[in-house]
Amino acid sequence: MDFRGAHILSVKQFERSDVDRIFEVADTMIPYARREKITKALQGAILGNMFFEPSTRTRVSFGCSFNLMGGQVRETTDVKTSSISKGESLYDTARVISGYSDVIVMRHPQVGSVSEFAKASRVPVINGGDGPNEHPSQALLDLYTIKKELLSNNRQIDGMHIAVIGDLKHGRTVHSLSQVLSLYDNITFKLISPAELKMPAEIVSELKDAGHKVIETEDMEAGLNDIDTVYLTRIQEERFTTKLEADIYRGRFRLNQSIYTRYCQPNTVIMHPLPRDSREEANELDNDLNQHPSLAIFRQTDNGVLVRMALFALVLDVAEKVDDTARDVGWYTQGRF
Amino acid sequence: MDFRGAHILSVKQFERSDVDRIFEVADTMIPYARREKITKALQGAILGNMFFEPSTRTRVSFGCSFNLMGGQVRETTDVKTSSISKGESLYDTARVISGYSDVIVMRHPQVGSVSEFAKASRVPVINGGDGPNEHPSQALLDLYTIKKELLSNNRQIDGMHIAVIGDLKHGRTVHSLSQVLSLYDNITFKLISPAELKMPAEIVSELKDAGHKVIETEDMEAGLNDIDTVYLTRIQEERFTTKLEADIYRGRFRLNQSIYTRYCQPNTVIMHPLPRDSREEANELDNDLNQHPSLAIFRQTDNGVLVRMALFALVLDVAEKVDDTARDVGWYTQGRF
Amino acid sequence: MDFRGAHILSVKQFERSDVDRIFEVADTMIPYARREKITKALQGAILGNMFFEPSTRTRVSFGCSFNLMGGQVRETTDVKTSSISKGESLYDTARVISGYSDVIVMRHPQVGSVSEFAKASRVPVINGGDGPNEHPSQALLDLYTIKKELLSNNRQIDGMHIAVIGDLKHGRTVHSLSQVLSLYDNITFKLISPAELKMPAEIVSELKDAGHKVIETEDMEAGLNDIDTVYLTRIQEERFTTKLEADIYRGRFRLNQSIYTRYCQPNTVIMHPLPRDSREEANELDNDLNQHPSLAIFRQTDNGVLVRMALFALVLDVAEKVDDTARDVGWYTQGRF
Repeated sequence: MDFRGAHILSVKQFERSDVDRIFEVADTMIPYARREKITKALQGAILGNMFFEPSTRTRVSFGCSFNLMGGQVRETTDVKTSSISKGESLYDTARVISGYSDVIVMRHPQVGSVSEFAKASRVPVINGGDGPNEHPSQALLDLYTIKKELLSNNRQIDGMHIAVIGDLKHGRTVHSLSQVLSLYDNITFKLISPAELKMPAEIVSELKDAGHKVIETEDMEAGLNDIDTVYLTRIQEERFTTKLEADIYRGRFRLNQSIYTRYCQPNTVIMHPLPRDSREEANELDNDLNQHPSLAIFRQTDNGVLVRMALFALVLDVAEKVDDTARDVGWYTQGRF
Repeated sequence: MDFRGAHILSVKQFERSDVDRIFEVADTMIPYARREKITKALQGAILGNMFFEPSTRTRVSFGCSFNLMGGQVRETTDVKTSSISKGESLYDTARVISGYSDVIVMRHPQVGSVSEFAKASRVPVINGGDGPNEHPSQALLDLYTIKKELLSNNRQIDGMHIAVIGDLKHGRTVHSLSQVLSLYDNITFKLISPAELKMPAEIVSELKDAGHKVIETEDMEAGLNDIDTVYLTRIQEERFTTKLEADIYRGRFRLNQSIYTRYCQPNTVIMHPLPRDSREEANELDNDLNQHPSLAIFRQTDNGVLVRMALFALVLDVAEKVDDTARDVGWYTQGRF
Repeated sequence: MDFRGAHILSVKQFERSDVDRIFEVADTMIPYARREKITKALQGAILGNMFFEPSTRTRVSFGCSFNLMGGQVRETTDVKTSSISKGESLYDTARVISGYSDVIVMRHPQVGSVSEFAKASRVPVINGGDGPNEHPSQALLDLYTIKKELLSNNRQIDGMHIAVIGDLKHGRTVHSLSQVLSLYDNITFKLISPAELKMPAEIVSELKDAGHKVIETEDMEAGLNDIDTVYLTRIQEERFTTKLEADIYRGRFRLNQSIYTRYCQPNTVIMHPLPRDSREEANELDNDLNQHPSLAIFRQTDNGVLVRMALFALVLDVAEKVDDTARDVGWYTQGRF
């Protein structure tokens, strides 16, 4: 695809070569994200960081990524303070906000809302999550992390075995990740969830149609056998009608040191899109794994900055210009990474 | 007036030459707002963007305008998280915040609050809307838009006919706009509203005293006859006691393609301060006019950036310095305008 | 202490030489805070301004201080929109957010939360207030102000008499200030509060153990006799179970012009951490003192910028580099100070 001026709405718009290109650019962002260098590539540019649904992590990650490229960020964090609550259409909001910004990141609770918004926008729009539907930058950072983690053990994504665990029905993260993994060859998916929270049938079909092997199970221990990557998720409480309904499933699948030792391979990469629910009744991913070298969850969020910088660089066509204005960082940064 | 260090609180403080000066400076901002150039005229300066009432559009517009001049923005978006909820006076808030900022934009639900705040501020304050009272930057951007739109058809503001439609009682936008139009010569105002939501009598008197013609009517079709500009507004639901009370008036006056074709002149400029209420029960300004060349509503919001940049440039006295640090934009901007 | 890369969590971590160093650096920030010069010392750096409890003043003060050093600010203002509400641990939040930022300021309602957060953070963390516990930057700015105000009358902190008035039980400000004053010699503390809202016994013991004189009283007039500095505080309503319970104490101690004239020395410095409760039923510090030359409350907040800039400069080790990129301010700043 031609990234210049493009919207990033869905992982479905990517071919494998597009993903390769994003990751190639992400790699060039490492010195900036690690505060070895700063750049002014986007000095004077404005990101409209429009979050019409609560978020700290994703919102701050996009904002920092834009700042690290030299740009400014204007944002909104609350739908109630917005014109949408006064009956404004997404068309109008998009026409207006795109007059203020050079690129827009948007999160919105309604499926399809970000695409609708993008149609009316005069500048590139990046989907920061539209309800239970898509969250492409998360899928890309997950994939980038898997690639890097496997590579450090001389493995690769093609042919990998991955266990995906938890609320596979509501988790947009796992939907988007499955679809982008689908671009690779010969992957074995072990989908571990309560029967009621299974991966949507159409995604399973797509994976099978693309030549991958899919095993659906409620038996976590069996599912963990012989895998390269385990990807855990949170019960998406906000997608259930009541907290009580979510509680039925909370804590059903848990990974901790003893289960890991017993069922996983020594180098199985441990991932989670975060936030992980660390309350006792959930404890999806136990703190006793916090120092484990295969725990990649914080490398995931660090990688998110790289991938988001890459998306900005590509849609605004400055990937080749970032190093032109580079200079060394002048403040104390020791011990960060 | 001398703009240097001045507060911008009300359109009443302007003479026609002041408005001309603002628009002259606004014109010089076009290359920056259109992302042809960037400037560092306000690099190191801080805007205190203090919104004590919900707003996305105006808040982001002011913030972007300041960013486009090279400055930084600190903001507050919620009165509940502020010291005002702990019994702090506007005097104290102003003394404190003006120690942090180089210029302050303030929106506040109480009439007169921004003027009171400005008295104690040590830096220039721009009124971003004080309840149903004033919203001078909106009036200026509306006026700037009218001027530009008429000019593109070889017409001018002096002698123009304008229809103003909707909730003329509560709409601070139409109050401020009427007053600033009053500086021009020989305008015909057709004020179309439900009898209960008429333009305040003192504003009507002022217009007449200034030599303009004012026609008040509840008959939209008659009012639309022979006009240059139609300015629609939203029912200001938040100023009514109950939503039910507002509902009585919602949708009473609507403009769409067929009404426009039937009653308006071919080039009648269509304006709205936005947000327009697009819910079916209101639909003040139909989407079937979205592609109409005379629909100026998104040019209005674009022009808002120019006018706000001009206000910052004037009160901080950098209007002549903006071009000194100009350089070309380095990212992809095609198709924006 | 070695400030480089250090967390600033509590005034207890400082020796007197550390405080001297902070104030020495704060003094060098005066031309920047007063908008005589701008610097790019932290250009490219990002402050994560994490406020998990309402605040305008402290949040904006830290943000502006970072902007004045050339850095960017990303922030969160609401715990409800954060991952913490989805069961995320402070450990996880810290690991993640510290991957986005170069330094973090955090406010959080729970005692000890900021220290816990700092343990997991990969970048320096500054405590912006952890519930009723600590607020070290406020204590430092208060102390800096006392020092400067006394100095302007050829007095000094050693040997000074200070009256501290109000809710001494819940006010973290007065706790931190007392502890940092404790580093000086031979101070007389007059602690004036309702019996139920007395200074915690352990702080009183610490002060006495450090060789200071402590007088606790409910009699304001007696307490005001022969003092150099009077420090008033607000009833910390948000720490009481009900507003009604707080109302019992509201307005019990008030300072106004006539009380000041009658009981204080002519140059007694008047301080308050702000916000002051100016509602009639409270009116802790009357507006009739607003023009009094000894009223230091707005110099306090101005000094807050200097002290916070100094903390950033020290933990990021750029104190010696600030002037290297200095240039004159180009916009109109007259009449600010």
